[in-house]
Amino acid sequence: MSDVSTLDIKVDRVEQSKFKPYESDNLLMGKNFTDHMLVCDYTNGAWQTPVIMPYGNMEMSPALAALHYGQAIFEGVKAYRQPDGSVAIFRPEANWKRMNVSAKRMDMPEIPEEIFIGGLQRLLQIDSQWIPGFPETSLYIRPFMFSTDAFIGVKTSDTYRFCIILSPAGRYYAKPVNIYVQDEFIRAAPGGIGFTKAAGNYGASMYPTHSVKEKGFDQILWTDAIHHKYVQEIGTMNVFFIVDGKALTPDLESGTILAGVTRDSIITLLKENNIPVEERPISIDELVSAYREGKLQEAFGSGTAASMSYIQSLTYQDETLQLKDVSEWTISPKIKAQLDDIRYGRVADTHNWRFIV
Amino acid sequence: MSDVSTLDIKVDRVEQSKFKPYESDNLLMGKNFTDHMLVCDYTNGAWQTPVIMPYGNMEMSPALAALHYGQAIFEGVKAYRQPDGSVAIFRPEANWKRMNVSAKRMDMPEIPEEIFIGGLQRLLQIDSQWIPGFPETSLYIRPFMFSTDAFIGVKTSDTYRFCIILSPAGRYYAKPVNIYVQDEFIRAAPGGIGFTKAAGNYGASMYPTHSVKEKGFDQILWTDAIHHKYVQEIGTMNVFFIVDGKALTPDLESGTILAGVTRDSIITLLKENNIPVEERPISIDELVSAYREGKLQEAFGSGTAASMSYIQSLTYQDETLQLKDVSEWTISPKIKAQLDDIRYGRVADTHNWRFIV
Repeated sequence: MSDVSTLDIKVDRVEQSKFKPYESDNLLMGKNFTDHMLVCDYTNGAWQTPVIMPYGNMEMSPALAALHYGQAIFEGVKAYRQPDGSVAIFRPEANWKRMNVSAKRMDMPEIPEEIFIGGLQRLLQIDSQWIPGFPETSLYIRPFMFSTDAFIGVKTSDTYRFCIILSPAGRYYAKPVNIYVQDEFIRAAPGGIGFTKAAGNYGASMYPTHSVKEKGFDQILWTDAIHHKYVQEIGTMNVFFIVDGKALTPDLESGTILAGVTRDSIITLLKENNIPVEERPISIDELVSAYREGKLQEAFGSGTAASMSYIQSLTYQDETLQLKDVSEWTISPKIKAQLDDIRYGRVADTHNWRFIV
Repeated sequence: MSDVSTLDIKVDRVEQSKFKPYESDNLLMGKNFTDHMLVCDYTNGAWQTPVIMPYGNMEMSPALAALHYGQAIFEGVKAYRQPDGSVAIFRPEANWKRMNVSAKRMDMPEIPEEIFIGGLQRLLQIDSQWIPGFPETSLYIRPFMFSTDAFIGVKTSDTYRFCIILSPAGRYYAKPVNIYVQDEFIRAAPGGIGFTKAAGNYGASMYPTHSVKEKGFDQILWTDAIHHKYVQEIGTMNVFFIVDGKALTPDLESGTILAGVTRDSIITLLKENNIPVEERPISIDELVSAYREGKLQEAFGSGTAASMSYIQSLTYQDETLQLKDVSEWTISPKIKAQLDDIRYGRVADTHNWRFIV
């Protein structure tokens, strides 16, 4: 990681912190934000001096390019209170790199490491009291970038704003989810932007998701755009299946799937636990066959917000694949526990995944 | 059209208009805006009273849902100064209906006709002096809607803002364009949001468009996501080809193509001129064959901004299809002249396309 200690940054602190000590682990992620945010503008072809300022509304033009033409990307990162009271960010370098992959595809300027990671570090130092210490709580970090030209016309914007905002995240009660396999609507297609964390990918998913929720399902398992057979992601998470003792997850070759940082971490841990991992196209037919043969043992979604979200059932057309009760699973809960131990600093950081603030 | 005269609306006029009489037809569309804008918020499950207020910046939360999750749609409409000094909007009802098609797919509330059309009418009455009178100028109308929840979490927003802003548009010097046939990147796929005017569709097109401009082309002709063979749209316009005296344009069945209001108007005029129109899948191979047989006579893009944009050449892989000089074309220029005559009120409005403000 490059030296971010030389970052030129302006700090404008709040006069009075609005922080009140947390009374429970019941914190609604994404609703409340800390005292400060980081804002950095891209103008005249260069990133200007980042500013840490009080969290609050921004003035925006009604012609703001991002609102009309969708050059808007984001990342999701988490910081965890460690046993010694210090704070560790989980793999921020991976998120920084992925944000720049998104930026390139969306024709936006790449953000320098010293601003993304160095700026985040300073921001967390200033708002460190906001990082909750209850078990299974964390601080959700939302870096995002959007186009800011005040111009109505389809063209790459000349100006952008990069921000980081922070929201305390409570304990996540990860109830096993019931999934509907979507073979009509799609999330992404080869040649599109499925591998990016672009705002447009999420807006397109609202209606299909809403539709299955009305039918009593929790989330969608997306299938591919060409054959409507190969599984892609589950809602906004990557997906894993444990079949006959092996872990299967869709590969990233087609450019339609987000390269999840949690996904990558889980693959690493699975391999260390001597669970064979196959990253390859996985058809719904293969999963149905495995289920009928009694070989579909476990399944889960993975992502920063939920960490791991266990799948209780998969409904494809008229058939529901009902998995065993999670209490009988052996592999996924073990991996989740190992991942949490690393995040919360309960074991040595042999992968260099913890970035101490 | 329903009665919009009963619209309950609040008007907050500027103290001093910033309007200065235009000195030429050189007006950069999308850069300058009129004195007023219309703003209408959707809260508590209902559209609130629309407000016409001075054009200016808005306060927005850094957690504004639209910036993160892309629930954002828009429309493009134009108003034209008529020979008698009155002002006609071109087919606003078609844009209102299409905006609600977009809204539905993006899981956003539909906007009532009385707000979209009635509000627009009031706004244009108030800012009527801004509508330029030079030949081939117009007023560009941008209705748009975006999600406004201040919440970071992938879910359908509970609150929205609908706005209309207005920008004077100068004479459009429609130089014939050289087109690159894109068979790597895609614009949309069946099951996605290609038929909507969602912000995300445009953000995804920036990099592919930018890339071909660097190679000296003006725009992309998109091909389909499945076969990379069937032509879709050209940049942000619908596309037509005149082949052996017939007009061919891609059909709308796959849901990947925007149902252009200009497209629909041109189809109507072509038929009235006894030009056979075929709306069906059109492969690039078919166009190459027609070209080699000397039957590819004319080609153009259609849209609100450019009206009709003539295509001079199409480059597919290593082959460039060079069309005859536009001065030798017979069909497209005739249709364009008829369309302009209707817009600028130089002929009777037999189609009921002009909505007099």
